[in-house]
Order: sequence, then C-alpha cells, then structure tokens
Amino acid sequence: MTEETPAVADCSRAEARRTQILDAAENCVREYGFHRASISKISRASGMGAGHIYHYFANKEAIVAAIVARELERVLTLTAEVQAADNMLEALALRTGSGVLGNLDSQAAGLKLEIVAEASRNPAIAAIVHAADSRRSAGLEETLKVLRQAHGLANDAATITAIAEVIAAMFEGLMVRAIRNPAVDRVLIARKFQQLIRAIVLG
Amino acid sequence: MTEETPAVADCSRAEARRTQILDAAENCVREYGFHRASISKISRASGMGAGHIYHYFANKEAIVAAIVARELERVLTLTAEVQAADNMLEALALRTGSGVLGNLDSQAAGLKLEIVAEASRNPAIAAIVHAADSRRSAGLEETLKVLRQAHGLANDAATITAIAEVIAAMFEGLMVRAIRNPAVDRVLIARKFQQLIRAIVLG
Repeated sequence: MTEETPAVADCSRAEARRTQILDAAENCVREYGFHRASISKISRASGMGAGHIYHYFANKEAIVAAIVARELERVLTLTAEVQAADNMLEALALRTGSGVLGNLDSQAAGLKLEIVAEASRNPAIAAIVHAADSRRSAGLEETLKVLRQAHGLANDAATITAIAEVIAAMFEGLMVRAIRNPAVDRVLIARKFQQLIRAIVLG
Repeated sequence: MTEETPAVADCSRAEARRTQILDAAENCVREYGFHRASISKISRASGMGAGHIYHYFANKEAIVAAIVARELERVLTLTAEVQAADNMLEALALRTGSGVLGNLDSQAAGLKLEIVAEASRNPAIAAIVHAADSRRSAGLEETLKVLRQAHGLANDAATITAIAEVIAAMFEGLMVRAIRNPAVDRVLIARKFQQLIRAIVLG
C-alpha cells in the first residue's frame, strides 16, 4: 500500500478541480452560448466559488483554451495510436468508425461549433482554435505521408495537404450534420465513411 | 415604357426593405452572435427604425428564418440548374468548384455556424434549420437518384442517403475549415473536391 506525498496529493486534487471546472464550463457554453456562459453560471454549475475558479483560470478565454487543449490531447492520442499500428490503414479505418459516431454526437457538436462560431469574431478564441488545428493537422499529415510512402504514392506537400483538408472537412462537417439533421443514421454514415476513407487516403 | 401600378411599386419597395433588414441582420449576427444581435443593433445597422423592422418581422427568430430561407432558395436554384443540365455529372462537378470557394468564405461561414450553434440549444431556430436542411437534402437526393440510375448504379434509399450525407458533411465541414484554418488553400481544395465528387457520386 503506497501513500501519496502531500505534494502529489495536492497535484491530483488540483487536477480534479480543474476537470470539475472544465466539465461545468462545457455544459454552460453548450447550454447558454459563449457570452451567456458567465463565470457565475460556471461557478454554480461546478459547485465551486468564483474566486476558486479564478485561482485556476484567469478568465473565460483561459477556460476555453483548456477545453480546446483537452480535445486536442484526445485527438493526438488517437493519432499516435494510428501511427503506432502495424497496419496504419486498418487502424485509420477503425478509428474512422468511432470518429464518425463521436462527431455525430449533437451535444459535443454543439459545444465545438459554439467555440468555432466565437472564433469567427473573437481574436483571442481564434488564436486558440488556429493553434490547436495546426497541431492536429500536422499529426494527420504526418500519418498520411508515411501511409502513402508505404504504398508508393505521391506524398508531396500539396497532395498531403489536400487530402488532410478533405478528411478534416468530412469529419468536422459531421458536427454540422448532427445539428441540421438530428435524425441522421449514424451507423449508415460510419460505414460509408469507412468505405471512403481508404479511397481518399490512397487516391 | 411600362409604368408600375402603385401595388407593384409597393411590393418591390417592401421587398427592398426586407432585403435591407436581412443584410443588416446578417452582419449583426455574424459580428455580435445571435444573442447580442439585438433588434436595436439591427435597426442602427439597417438605418431603419425598430418599429419599421417589426412591421416586416415579428421577432429575431422570424429574421433568422428569412435568412435561412434566402440561403435555401439559392441552393435550390443551383440544384435545379444541375438537374436541368444535359450532363448532370459535369454540372455537379462544376458547381462543386464554386461551392467549395463559397463555403470557404469565412464571413459567410461565421454567420451560418452561428445559426447552427444557436439551433443546438434553441428549439425555434432548430425547427427552422431542420426544415431547410430537409428540403435541401431532398433536392440533392433526387439529383443523386437520377444520376446513379442513368449510370446503372444502385439507387435504393440507404445508398442515396449515405452518399447525400457524405456530400453534405464534406461541404458543410468547409465552413468549419474556413475558421479553424483561415490559411487554407482554397483553389487546391476546390480541385480536390472536384476530383472526389465523381468518385463519391458514382461509388
């Protein structure tokens, strides 16, 4: 039986508090929109005092930055898993199925689109979103480069960028579909995406 | 030389006023977001009194409904043009190029994504968005059905729906790309989409 040192216990408690704030903030931004998701609403939703929230985050932009960073971390982990697979194309197709289902989740989609919409008019949020997109994109492009080289296909910068942008558009468009057409057949779309992804990657 | 009757002149004046309000409202929603785009801001931006605006539109939801209807009208006109073409596949590929460039316009994208984000939490806006999407979708599915039949390909409901949803996701995802990656090479993406659209339609 191990005992945590006080410093480690403090760290994991701080991590738990941050997570508690981010979860509450996600719900508030989704439910009220960026501007009406005030620190006082986030405080009520998280069950933590506003002063306590400011101890962890300087302002709402910092909270959004952490929400975006958390999602980026998740995507980069998936990217690393694909890159580490023996058969990268199979791993990518597999990840495509769960990726489609995830992006068609209308709750998650609503939150992400609210942040994108805010980025279209708020330079601080735009900078956060651009930086995260650029890192996500670099990971996908690296995967595509290795994959196409292994298949003896052209992997110059323009080819790779075009394929990466099409894949990004397809997946990110699912978030819009989730809201514009909530009746969408998620399994049907996942199957179609899996079928197309190979053709697009190797096209 | 024809002279308009007073009734016709009234109609076209009313139409011009409505357009003036919608243009101003689009700018306000894009710049401030749905909630902060108040009728008083729209009034200032359009140079028309608030009372005058209420003469044409009952509330902000009615203005958003008209913005969505105007965009739907544009898309349905393009759909009709593709359906009337001698070579529908060529017409679709041609429309794909301009469609990509249009959807990558970050100003237009910001406005549409703001409305989608609002639809994710506002049932009145959701109903407007769902109805428009359903009509747009029916037009595309009709085009795909005829096109695939002409090529002797399966055109059962599930096949057509899957293809239509993938195409919708690809195009709507471009709006997200326009904001997440403003440096995106629009011409490169338009070319890639044109290359893929035939394969997806006939796949």
